[in-house]
Amino acid sequence: MNIESYIRTTPDFPKPGVIFRDFTPLLAHGPAFRALIDQLKGRYEGKEIDVVVGIEARGFVLASALAYALGAGTVLIRKAGKLPHQTHAQEYELEYGSSVLEISCDALQAGQRVLVVDDVLATGGTVGAAVKLLEMHFSIALEELVFLIELDDLKGRETLPDIPIYSVFHY
Amino acid sequence: MNIESYIRTTPDFPKPGVIFRDFTPLLAHGPAFRALIDQLKGRYEGKEIDVVVGIEARGFVLASALAYALGAGTVLIRKAGKLPHQTHAQEYELEYGSSVLEISCDALQAGQRVLVVDDVLATGGTVGAAVKLLEMHFSIALEELVFLIELDDLKGRETLPDIPIYSVFHY
Repeated sequence: MNIESYIRTTPDFPKPGVIFRDFTPLLAHGPAFRALIDQLKGRYEGKEIDVVVGIEARGFVLASALAYALGAGTVLIRKAGKLPHQTHAQEYELEYGSSVLEISCDALQAGQRVLVVDDVLATGGTVGAAVKLLEMHFSIALEELVFLIELDDLKGRETLPDIPIYSVFHY
Repeated sequence: MNIESYIRTTPDFPKPGVIFRDFTPLLAHGPAFRALIDQLKGRYEGKEIDVVVGIEARGFVLASALAYALGAGTVLIRKAGKLPHQTHAQEYELEYGSSVLEISCDALQAGQRVLVVDDVLATGGTVGAAVKLLEMHFSIALEELVFLIELDDLKGRETLPDIPIYSVFHY
């Protein structure tokens, strides 16, 4: 099955000059979605992954299904103010201004084997903040950073620390 | 397995007097998360569900894993401005002011059998807007509204149209 054919290219969204890779048709098609998650499951099963971390909000969709497929749990990294209890926070730069990601202080246990999942690797700002949150506050094994789509020209991968990165599709 | 024991009660969040039912520990625990999704899978398998719709953002977590478990696709109902392409929009009332949910105009096909999933049924405002979006714009079979938690005292169920509702836990 050619699951890539379910990714739709939308020019000039969210602003002129940007090509948006829209994978919502892939998610919406049952066999394509299953094939995508099964491909990722095949990559990680046997690696005893304990937790798949998803980054708000599209990362949740992939992280949750992969977690279920692997028998792992899923942990949410959210925008500021959305999580109850004590959180760790990490600011990161956007094109204009900055934003903050948070994780619950008790989200992970020492020694857990963890994947981090987001939909798109662009400049790497968001996932970089997520990695800082995880590495600064938890004694875990960060096995791999997983993306559905990597935008190679933006070289986000070069901004990230020395952790394996896997992207299903490159553009 | 008593999966309810993984739901944590947090008083006075997000504001004084509110009791917040925090199910993030349930998501984070691999066996509990699998047991939860398998319970829902058991309820719906054999019903030929085509699409599980999730409501932003915590609804995505449950909808996606359930969709994968059922071999269905998943469709996102998002806050305004997050979806590319043409969307249908529906305003709804919040405690102070209002908000808008959107769905892509081509998200669903006529005749599809659909579940709608969100984390909590409280006053019913959010899911009510989601149901309006689906019923006004698509010729689908809305099989059931699914919640992890229903807050019975808020009587959200009474505000919703005549569609079956299933909640895993009641408080």
